[in-house]
Amino acid sequence: MTVFITGGSVTKFGELWGTSPRVLAHEVFENALTNAKITKAKIESLYVGNMLAGILGGQEHLGALFAEELGLTDIPAFHIEGACASGGLAVHAATLAVASGQYKTVAVLGVEKMTDYKPEVISTALMGAGSDEERMAGATFPGLYAILARAYMEKYKVSERQLASVSVKNHFHASLNPNAQFRNVLTIDTVMKSSLVADPLKLLECSPVTDGAAALIITSADVKGAVEIIASEVATDTLGLAQRGSLTSLPATQTASDKAYRKAGIGPKDVDVAEVHDCFSIAEILALEDLGFYAKGTAGQSILKGEVTLGRSKHLVVNTSGGLKGAGHPVGATGVKQIVEVINQLKGKAGKRQVKGAKIGLTQNVGGSGATAVVHILKNT
Amino acid sequence: MTVFITGGSVTKFGELWGTSPRVLAHEVFENALTNAKITKAKIESLYVGNMLAGILGGQEHLGALFAEELGLTDIPAFHIEGACASGGLAVHAATLAVASGQYKTVAVLGVEKMTDYKPEVISTALMGAGSDEERMAGATFPGLYAILARAYMEKYKVSERQLASVSVKNHFHASLNPNAQFRNVLTIDTVMKSSLVADPLKLLECSPVTDGAAALIITSADVKGAVEIIASEVATDTLGLAQRGSLTSLPATQTASDKAYRKAGIGPKDVDVAEVHDCFSIAEILALEDLGFYAKGTAGQSILKGEVTLGRSKHLVVNTSGGLKGAGHPVGATGVKQIVEVINQLKGKAGKRQVKGAKIGLTQNVGGSGATAVVHILKNT
Repeated sequence: MTVFITGGSVTKFGELWGTSPRVLAHEVFENALTNAKITKAKIESLYVGNMLAGILGGQEHLGALFAEELGLTDIPAFHIEGACASGGLAVHAATLAVASGQYKTVAVLGVEKMTDYKPEVISTALMGAGSDEERMAGATFPGLYAILARAYMEKYKVSERQLASVSVKNHFHASLNPNAQFRNVLTIDTVMKSSLVADPLKLLECSPVTDGAAALIITSADVKGAVEIIASEVATDTLGLAQRGSLTSLPATQTASDKAYRKAGIGPKDVDVAEVHDCFSIAEILALEDLGFYAKGTAGQSILKGEVTLGRSKHLVVNTSGGLKGAGHPVGATGVKQIVEVINQLKGKAGKRQVKGAKIGLTQNVGGSGATAVVHILKNT
Repeated sequence: MTVFITGGSVTKFGELWGTSPRVLAHEVFENALTNAKITKAKIESLYVGNMLAGILGGQEHLGALFAEELGLTDIPAFHIEGACASGGLAVHAATLAVASGQYKTVAVLGVEKMTDYKPEVISTALMGAGSDEERMAGATFPGLYAILARAYMEKYKVSERQLASVSVKNHFHASLNPNAQFRNVLTIDTVMKSSLVADPLKLLECSPVTDGAAALIITSADVKGAVEIIASEVATDTLGLAQRGSLTSLPATQTASDKAYRKAGIGPKDVDVAEVHDCFSIAEILALEDLGFYAKGTAGQSILKGEVTLGRSKHLVVNTSGGLKGAGHPVGATGVKQIVEVINQLKGKAGKRQVKGAKIGLTQNVGGSGATAVVHILKNT
């Protein structure tokens, strides 16, 4: 059965002190319904992507909680968790639920409220995505991605300026996105001079701690103006880096995207816009290579040259939303927000960051240091 | 697409000090594969039901974690959470994933390790299933179910002996189940004399804290000896009791089972064996009524008379495994274990607790005090 997205919405991302997950959920859900031109009575099931409410707040049972909160009481509701890929996994589960024929129209909610906790509490909570060994060793995600960056830079003789260029591009895109957490334009020098967090990664190469929510309406009804989900694929890998076959790629991204391209019947060259999981600068470089957009070792110089920057790209533009670095990274919401950005691009509703004539979009959402990867390919109908 | 179960397995349930969730997962997964007569290379996706690993252990990302642990690295893997209904929800998600055609054969793992923590820590963690108001008021689940019991007893003039008879029946069934946590036979007097936990609920009317795991193999391949999933339905309700329309039933169970009977094309009278969510004695009474087996106010006296007890029932037998009370309640595993028990009954492999000629079985798995209900109906092929 063919599955479509008819509506999507994101909140402002950032340090949203004055609001709660419930308020954020209402905002995106009601806006998504409006975009889809349906009432909530049409929603037959709810899929909630969230990672941290249990660890940080002691609250689980988020399917029923948000079904009640959104006035959807008595419909089936599910909490899907897969670390920072929770949102993408929720979209996948919702897509298959619709494809099964059991539900005609469902809603996906990705939501995370992170800034109410101290930074060290959040860092520890996020390690709930990592392996036992990494947690016990006191590793944090900047450290883990720094290991990937070091291995990659040594193998491919890549400069720190190439890494820095990821943040420069994504902050430029974020400057055009009213919902982005950071709208300041950066230079490579500014990034290079920012504090070292985990060598070689600097503060301005690390995605922030963010509050935010995103929602989608997914349906089997082929209504005018819908975007088609032409592939929804997931792959996994070892939780910890020590067990991986490679430190210079994320094999789960390769596996998921290979399957997705095959399912969609397209190749990387057919993709016009992509939202990829740039939790750290190195992650976007790995993503562009693992997704087949660039040969190994070459994505950094291409980003530095402006090849995937809005207004400078000849074809593919990456992370028009500002990515995780510029737009923010409310972990359970990120995979859903990526898809909202892509559908806005495909529908020509991306405002100042519109990629002209975008017809096919791709999203890549990663959990942990690459133990889960979710790839969606979307097409204008 | 028709969906079948070809294999299932449970571990011993109990206080399993000498083992870990990883070891439990291996045991049930490998036994389920053996029952299904397939190798793990056939497994295309993994669905993990678990509630407490995040809150108690700070570990999330359980899909990828168990995919790696079980040697399934690189297949899609999902962590589904819905409090004590996490297992049932994982089965539902897996069923729809297979029905969608995206995956042919998938595995479901329900797993929970609870006894490594102090009782008060577990009680608080379990309140992650409840509403904000209930958590802030310091309510615990025995207290919440005691409210339901009180309201029910007042409305229907039901005796405490009727409630106690649920535990007597379920401990009798558990005495026949080598995997049950408690295999001691009880009398009504023993139950009545046990410590009061939350008036009117006594210690021997409360399900225990338990470690354990259960696994299923779900497939679209119609192999000889498979059990067919003829309905998989979910419904939700308010998280908190204060917002409910009724305190003498669980409306989510009614909604889910109404849909399930319609989908299956059968009625309550057609069910031969049922595993219901007897987290507290009152819960089984409510379940038998909400599922349509008995009129409101009458299930307690029927249980007391032995109507759903093995060897005394003329037709329906309930909780042959011993239920949550007798067999134990490792929360994320319970919904999966219920289905393993029913498929063993339908295949004539339930040993001393076999219900002769059982052809149709039903399971009811509840999250929180009734905010989530999952109903499966299974049929011999």
